Amino acid sequence: MAADHKGFTLWMTGLSGSGKSTITEVLIDSFEARDVPIEVLDGDIVRENLSKGLGFSKEDRDTNITRIGFVADLLARNGVPVVTAAISPYQETRDAVRKQHEQSGARFIETFIATSLEDCEARDVKGLYAKARSGEIPVFTGVSDPYEAPGSPELAVETAGKTPEESAATILAYLEAERLIPAA
Amino acid sequence: MAADHKGFTLWMTGLSGSGKSTITEVLIDSFEARDVPIEVLDGDIVRENLSKGLGFSKEDRDTNITRIGFVADLLARNGVPVVTAAISPYQETRDAVRKQHEQSGARFIETFIATSLEDCEARDVKGLYAKARSGEIPVFTGVSDPYEAPGSPELAVETAGKTPEESAATILAYLEAERLIPAA
Repeated sequence: MAADHKGFTLWMTGLSGSGKSTITEVLIDSFEARDVPIEVLDGDIVRENLSKGLGFSKEDRDTNITRIGFVADLLARNGVPVVTAAISPYQETRDAVRKQHEQSGARFIETFIATSLEDCEARDVKGLYAKARSGEIPVFTGVSDPYEAPGSPELAVETAGKTPEESAATILAYLEAERLIPAA
Repeated sequence: MAADHKGFTLWMTGLSGSGKSTITEVLIDSFEARDVPIEVLDGDIVRENLSKGLGFSKEDRDTNITRIGFVADLLARNGVPVVTAAISPYQETRDAVRKQHEQSGARFIETFIATSLEDCEARDVKGLYAKARSGEIPVFTGVSDPYEAPGSPELAVETAGKTPEESAATILAYLEAERLIPAA
């Protein structure tokens, strides 16, 4: 039997390379250590299973995010802890997902992974910023497409100078304080 | 706190007008009476939220069914009882969804709502068979597109001469016997 926990959607948002996926990996280990289930809906999983054929226009990106939101809400309202790790650059779309959760009574935690564009671009783990600057990738968040930072997120994680473990600890402390997961 | 139950996907398959939605309504009431949660993924809900833009070609229908399967599996493996009520006419696609559940350790219950084409067409609740026969609907399961009846479903519900309540009772008896839901 899994440890006591509640359903919620921890909705990470942040630039490409901001650390969403790395922090998620730490969260997965931390949840496992507490015997709490977790479902991760990252952009790639959802594009493969729910959104094949969609491109990167604003409309297609919105559709992809709305689908992640639909599935996250289904899980969260049934007591499952969910972490999403898509860039989700537009505030209006994130607000629509929040509203959906509010209507179903599921908990929505907008979590801004606040890594600066300069830091993301300096690392450029996947080489995507270089391709975006050269024009090889024509539409890219932060370079040729806007990233709208959350106005009033439940959580803002400043990653500068921090390890992924330290960033994840900020999130875990919040979830514990809100009694959504048990203490370690 | 909800009553003791397990996660599973009750995957209904059957012709248009076979009674899937009506039986589902009875199941929703019966689950509520037992204080067991239930998530219903019917074809229309999923087309609206996950598959807008898809048509009714074999490829698009398969994509739609695969998406329902992906979401059902996510829920079922997290302990949520799920009922799907899409026609899902192709055995190969249903088998792919079954395989996905097996891989994740989630329970999959293929449930054939075995109403004959003659009976479905005689009722024609939504007038769709008439439109299919006249050609107004060019592709329609059972008329101009195949329905592949399940070869070895976990459950086959013969609806002829039965009320929806009686058909639902067959399903509930199975779920009780398998200890997936508590007795009424």
